[in-house]
Formats: sequence, structure tokens, C-alpha cells
Amino acid sequence: MMISMYQASVPYFLRLLGNLREILQKGVAHAEAKKFDAAVLVNARLAPDMLPLVRQIQIASDNAKGPAARLAGIDPPKFEDTETTMPQLLERIDKTVAFLKTLKPEQIDGSEGRDIVLPLRSGTLNFKGMNYLMFFALPNFTFHVVTAYNILRHNGVEIGKFDFLGRN
Amino acid sequence: MMISMYQASVPYFLRLLGNLREILQKGVAHAEAKKFDAAVLVNARLAPDMLPLVRQIQIASDNAKGPAARLAGIDPPKFEDTETTMPQLLERIDKTVAFLKTLKPEQIDGSEGRDIVLPLRSGTLNFKGMNYLMFFALPNFTFHVVTAYNILRHNGVEIGKFDFLGRN
Repeated sequence: MMISMYQASVPYFLRLLGNLREILQKGVAHAEAKKFDAAVLVNARLAPDMLPLVRQIQIASDNAKGPAARLAGIDPPKFEDTETTMPQLLERIDKTVAFLKTLKPEQIDGSEGRDIVLPLRSGTLNFKGMNYLMFFALPNFTFHVVTAYNILRHNGVEIGKFDFLGRN
Repeated sequence: MMISMYQASVPYFLRLLGNLREILQKGVAHAEAKKFDAAVLVNARLAPDMLPLVRQIQIASDNAKGPAARLAGIDPPKFEDTETTMPQLLERIDKTVAFLKTLKPEQIDGSEGRDIVLPLRSGTLNFKGMNYLMFFALPNFTFHVVTAYNILRHNGVEIGKFDFLGRN
């Protein structure tokens, strides 16, 4: 028994997206309790030249659906990046989760050696499936989930690490 | 071919620890350029009730050596958490990397179903090896590396996501 490419990807994305959803909901509750507009959090950043919460969520979404689809050899659904409110960000997570749940293990398993070509603004990156997953997709996705957490935590939302990790 | 437990753990830890080392070095260079004591960064936080950089690095270290050792069925080395300077934090990373490099794939491979018992302050967590790695160890370790990155980024250190991800 070893870890399959499906086991190391889709369940990981689903778990952290579910946790991210609850973290955002705590942000909404915090804004209500403190009587400020939750859209302030949507646009909050950790540095003036760093992306705001809305982009962290959109990019986390892209870095879950994109890698899962690429490993499965299909095109990911395109989402338009038009979210401006917390409910829309929750919906973005839900759409991402719904897509991930359509993927079956047999579509992704066996993709360890698949050639993955990633066109980025900075140039094209080439990977084999396993290195793409372990050294690019998982850390990249997690980066944006943690940064979303940190933006909310920095802004006073009462969340702790087990909100990020989830509870068993 | 699938992913082995070793492939999904030690190389992931090593890669991100190496990147974290370079990120800290950029913090040191930033402090020098701006003529402030780099120890300010060691104690920097994203929120008053959140752990400072020094603890993020120590906990990232613990969450690399601990899981790798647990999956291998051995005791991790104990480090004393006495770091107060950037050079000491770099040394902490180096000690962690040195330990990880002593682990051989055959010590960790096959640990998917191993019982992992994790005594935490909040209670004992029980896992099988694969769930422990994918749903606890990897996200927990990554959380602290990303938070270290975010603390430095928030404090003006010029780093970008590819400093975190590494370049191929």
C-alpha cells in the first residue's frame, strides 16, 4: 500500500477548503459582532503590495481545481474572479468543492509520471505529475489558504490553528 | 507506481525548509539594508496574541522532525527552543535538515497504516500514518512556514511566492 495521486490531492484540497469556509464564516460573524462591513475583510491585506483576501481565496480555488483537473487530464472549470463579498467567496469555495467532488480516483491515479506543462506569466514550468503535486500544487494551494487565515487573524478574527487543520 | 510515504514527507520538508532558510536570510539582509536589528524580526507577530517568528520557525522545525521520526518509528531529536537571533534560527533549520537527511526511505515507507498517537495539550489525537501525514503533518508544517513568510512580508521584507515555493 502506498499513497495514490488521488489520495494526496483531492481529499487534501477538500479538507482545507472546508476548513477555509468555516474560517471565512468566522470572519463574517466577527464583522457582525463588531458592527463593521465584512467587505472590509474581503479587501484586507498583510502588506500594501500583497494580494487581498479576495485574491487569496480565488487563487486557492484556482490552485485546487487547476491541479486536480491537470492531473486528471481535463480542463478545469473557469470561474470569473468577480467576487466582492463574503457570501460570494463562500460560493466560490462551494463551486470549487463541487467540481472536485466530480473527480473520481481512477481519473487521477496513475498520473505520477504525467507531463504537466504550466504556463505562467514568468515562463513555462514543466513537471512530472508527482513533483508537480508535491512541490508545486500542494504548497501553493496551502500558501493561499494560510495567508487567508493570517489576513483574518491579523484583523482580529478569533481563529486558531485547529480551525485551519480541522478537527477529526 | 504510487507515492511512497517517504516521498510525500521528507523531500517536502527538506524543500520548504531550504526555502525558509533563504527567506530568513532575506530578512537578515533587509534589516541590514534598513539599519535595524534583525532581532526585531525574530519577535515580530501578525497579531498580539499570535506566536512570533521565532516560535513559527521552532514549530515548523518540530513539525518536520517530529512527523518524519514518528513515521519512521523512532524518537525525534530534542531541540531546546532557546533561539533568540536570526543566526540561531538558521542553525535550527540546519539541525532539522541534518536530522531529516539521516532518514532513509526504507524507514518511512510502509508507514501508511502505522498507528500514530499524538499527545497534545488539548488531548490525544490518534491517526493512521497516511491520514496523519496528509491531514495533520503536511498542513501543520506548511502553516508555520507560510506564517513565517507572512510575518516577514508584513514587515517589509521583499520576498515573493517563488521564494516560498522554490525554483526548479
